[in-house]
Amino acid sequence: MTIEAKRLEELTARYEEYCARGLALDMSRGKPGPEQLELTADMLDCLNSHADFKAEDGMDVRNYGGLTGIPEARRMFGDVLGVPAENVIVGGNSSLNLMFDYIANMYSMGATGCEPWCKQETVKFLCPVPGYDRHFSITEYFGIEMVRVPMNEDGPDMDVVEQLIRDEAVKGMWCVPMYSNPGGITYADETVRRLAAMKPRAKDFRLMWDNAYCVHHLSDTHDMLLNIFDEAKKHGNEEHIVAFTSTSKISFPGAGVAVMAAMGKTYDDIVRRLSMQTIGYDKMNMMRHVRYFKNAAGIVSHMKLHAAVLRPKFDVVLNTLEKHLGGKNMAQWHRPTGGYFVSVDVPGCATEIIRLLRKAGVKMTEAGAPFPYHHDPEDKTMRIAPTYPSVAELEQAMELFCICTEIAVLKKSV
Amino acid sequence: MTIEAKRLEELTARYEEYCARGLALDMSRGKPGPEQLELTADMLDCLNSHADFKAEDGMDVRNYGGLTGIPEARRMFGDVLGVPAENVIVGGNSSLNLMFDYIANMYSMGATGCEPWCKQETVKFLCPVPGYDRHFSITEYFGIEMVRVPMNEDGPDMDVVEQLIRDEAVKGMWCVPMYSNPGGITYADETVRRLAAMKPRAKDFRLMWDNAYCVHHLSDTHDMLLNIFDEAKKHGNEEHIVAFTSTSKISFPGAGVAVMAAMGKTYDDIVRRLSMQTIGYDKMNMMRHVRYFKNAAGIVSHMKLHAAVLRPKFDVVLNTLEKHLGGKNMAQWHRPTGGYFVSVDVPGCATEIIRLLRKAGVKMTEAGAPFPYHHDPEDKTMRIAPTYPSVAELEQAMELFCICTEIAVLKKSV
Repeated sequence: MTIEAKRLEELTARYEEYCARGLALDMSRGKPGPEQLELTADMLDCLNSHADFKAEDGMDVRNYGGLTGIPEARRMFGDVLGVPAENVIVGGNSSLNLMFDYIANMYSMGATGCEPWCKQETVKFLCPVPGYDRHFSITEYFGIEMVRVPMNEDGPDMDVVEQLIRDEAVKGMWCVPMYSNPGGITYADETVRRLAAMKPRAKDFRLMWDNAYCVHHLSDTHDMLLNIFDEAKKHGNEEHIVAFTSTSKISFPGAGVAVMAAMGKTYDDIVRRLSMQTIGYDKMNMMRHVRYFKNAAGIVSHMKLHAAVLRPKFDVVLNTLEKHLGGKNMAQWHRPTGGYFVSVDVPGCATEIIRLLRKAGVKMTEAGAPFPYHHDPEDKTMRIAPTYPSVAELEQAMELFCICTEIAVLKKSV
Repeated sequence: MTIEAKRLEELTARYEEYCARGLALDMSRGKPGPEQLELTADMLDCLNSHADFKAEDGMDVRNYGGLTGIPEARRMFGDVLGVPAENVIVGGNSSLNLMFDYIANMYSMGATGCEPWCKQETVKFLCPVPGYDRHFSITEYFGIEMVRVPMNEDGPDMDVVEQLIRDEAVKGMWCVPMYSNPGGITYADETVRRLAAMKPRAKDFRLMWDNAYCVHHLSDTHDMLLNIFDEAKKHGNEEHIVAFTSTSKISFPGAGVAVMAAMGKTYDDIVRRLSMQTIGYDKMNMMRHVRYFKNAAGIVSHMKLHAAVLRPKFDVVLNTLEKHLGGKNMAQWHRPTGGYFVSVDVPGCATEIIRLLRKAGVKMTEAGAPFPYHHDPEDKTMRIAPTYPSVAELEQAMELFCICTEIAVLKKSV
């Protein structure tokens, strides 16, 4: 018996042991855990039956009106995103919904004097991979052709991007610039500068800047992201950018506040459509958030409570990977300093590893999900979402993950 | 001096008196008054920091998930609309947003195997007039050609409707079937039956059934509306209908809960798009509403509190009209038993009356607003929204309305 065969036998025995435990763990979605939901419980008491319901402009937040949000919420979230309040729209509970609506608008109405995308022969979008599956679902839904761009340690490969935007059919690009989903990579200053300086052939090109994890640091030593709007202004490109964030992973995942920011004509177009679509978003929920967090500094400070819950979970993931797979030349991963995910690459084995895990009761995001059309050409990337399970559950799940990885790699090399 | 000239002089003097008072009143929008906002204040205390956050299916309403809403909210609003919970989607804070999104979906994706509306040469929509300006804005925004249908005392003129739907380009119809905006008319049983039995040429025809005022009665003696879904099922037409309502005028105008209902493939299409658009609407706000109202009967009972506030306001409007314009053959109006508006017709004079009122400090919905493209061909229809001003303010505004009406009519006949 070879050393490999022996090792495989040993690992299979341990795998069977895990299967016998009847685990039921979910590492598939970036869902805050139960302890995190408690952190903002007091926010609900900020707007009880005895509250003052007047926004600072005198508007009663209970009544109709206020299309772009109450002034104090626009200011607070403008400070979070680094843009003036006047460029901010505070929306409903879902930034994904704001992104979907923005793409839907470009599809049906267009902008910058260009034909709407539905009337154009071919519309393409740049998709840094691995990326966020729900972004790709939106562009796929609208029949937009998705073009993969490799993600490097400093963000999307800008040589590739700068080449691709010479094609007039390329109308935009998905970006999660800070603690990317799933890689946990923050775009380097030089990457942001090059993105901001781009002069795409398409006049209606849009950078979909999903800054979902802008304050989601795991410790005081964390990544920093350059302000894309400031950089873009230097080149007169600020109207290319539509930025998004939300409090889904700050206050309540299902009942937070979503935010978008844009400038000039891009902002005006959004507001015009919005004025047809609604009389205004939920201002009472905006008020809850402002009363509770007070300002951007209050949000940043609150995020330390989340970090205290999440750091041990990320430590389990990263330490277990290091302990069992470190130096074995089987798997690669980035050590993120924030965000919601750890991404692990095992070339040719993602589908098999995820299958083995599922059989043993551990649910992972399906193989291929972080790629356009659910197709990972190297079948290598797996997204680990460590936030929802407990530390004890994660310990089991990650031990098992390492066992399954080694089994898959060994089987493949046999 | 003729009698008419003398009367005009007298009225003009009274009008000048009003102008001198420096009024600043708003009868332009169907906006609940401050007293109404207090009626549901306790709802906020139903979901405080010590609340139980589990929906009846065990889902934590604070977290992600629940695309179509929590089961207890779907059931409660299903009972309000007279449809099973499984046909209900509980949305965000705005039914207008749900309607916009539905039209946007038909525009970009289509349904029933038909080409999306954006790919079709001509798309037309039937618009009973007078109607709701925000409905017409949506269809205008998407470049849909709006065809007027006269409203009679029993609803839209069905002879006209049945003729028009033979045109394959006619893809849908806006309906406010109960206490129509602005006429306050409830569709008669026969009208609902004929709408439900229609076999339009267009396979992707949709009845946009905006049942905004389904429980908004002004007294115990009120209109009744036939259940459109029940009637449509008799003809296999239930997939033509998309019904909407909201609690905007039940709980909080800016922070209520919106609802839509549909059946079969129409429902499935909505959910499919929704699954791309969001992870779920605000379930905490749904929970607030369920905890507070308990069930559909609780909503109906709560509406009596609103009626007690609104009845005196409608009485001022209707009694003042009767007192000053009754029997003069100048103006026509319907006496609604619910809803949010009184509509007054003065042929050839709407623009002038509204101008006179605005000059004297009373803001009305602009002339033409209740018609597609803001064009009232007879310049006759004015929408009075009596809910926001106080009774004392309304008394002044309505006296003035009658003065302005008489001035405009007399001037015209001189």
